[in-house]
Amino acid sequence: MKLVIAIIQDKDSQRFSNALIRENIRATKLASTGGFLRSGNTTFFIGIEDERVEDVLTIIKENCKSREQLVSPISSLGGNADSYIPYPVEVQVGGATVFVLPIEQYFQF
Amino acid sequence: MKLVIAIIQDKDSQRFSNALIRENIRATKLASTGGFLRSGNTTFFIGIEDERVEDVLTIIKENCKSREQLVSPISSLGGNADSYIPYPVEVQVGGATVFVLPIEQYFQF
Amino acid sequence: MKLVIAIIQDKDSQRFSNALIRENIRATKLASTGGFLRSGNTTFFIGIEDERVEDVLTIIKENCKSREQLVSPISSLGGNADSYIPYPVEVQVGGATVFVLPIEQYFQF
Ligand code: NI
Ligand code: NI
Ligand code: NI
Repeated sequence: MKLVIAIIQDKDSQRFSNALIRENIRATKLASTGGFLRSGNTTFFIGIEDERVEDVLTIIKENCKSREQLVSPISSLGGNADSYIPYPVEVQVGGATVFVLPIEQYFQF
Repeated sequence: MKLVIAIIQDKDSQRFSNALIRENIRATKLASTGGFLRSGNTTFFIGIEDERVEDVLTIIKENCKSREQLVSPISSLGGNADSYIPYPVEVQVGGATVFVLPIEQYFQF
Repeated sequence: MKLVIAIIQDKDSQRFSNALIRENIRATKLASTGGFLRSGNTTFFIGIEDERVEDVLTIIKENCKSREQLVSPISSLGGNADSYIPYPVEVQVGGATVFVLPIEQYFQF
């Protein structure tokens, strides 16, 4: 068994959670903030058999990879024409920080 | 020293917390959700000497074991007589997921 | 890589957080309660290269050490003159509990 601790940006945490359920992998979720990732994120604790760690990592990569996204600037109603950016801008979204920890004992009571 | 991470269903977490205090075992609590356990649960971080890990596991078993409980169905006021279940039903309550992790260093500042 | 789990009393957590940012060390924060430390505290997860663990411990010691502080008692308006303590009292503030955990794998996606 390993304990996978995955810190997932809020934007991806619901999708990641759904993917775990589809694969019948149990996780415990804790609300967290900060770190590499922009403000809101969720910390997942996942106890998993050694031979399935790779599966968990694949699910994270498929659902939570950091990527750029085009965001349309909010239209500057009544704003200064000089400061108005008329084209969409790229922002970084998603991303995950993952620790795989050794476990000495694991119990389900 | 070990780090015991115990995920305890909300129904049992206060009782477990009290038991730890009686045994003079310190724990840090984090609000968590999901996993094996039904919705609300609490994640306890317990730093403990190797020779007391067994004590902590016993306290968890005594206070947080998954068990069945009879629940009386809510009376179906004005409901369809055909769909009314007139006898109590068994539901699973309690339960704990426990990880015992090795520690390389432990400090109290 | 190591995973440093630091449980920091609320009184010191903002200062600690700022110190980590100054040193360019990323941390994830989780709200927590109880333990050694008085009521509110914050649990920091810090993934860090082996050779910088000592730096993190130094930052914790410098910002979060348990110490005594003089606190003026709240004036007992209309209270019993016999029970009024007319001098400041020393209370314990700050403090940190720190676990350094081994990591088998670390990823940033
Ligand atoms: Ni294993
Ligand atoms: Ni030990
Ligand atoms: Ni290492």
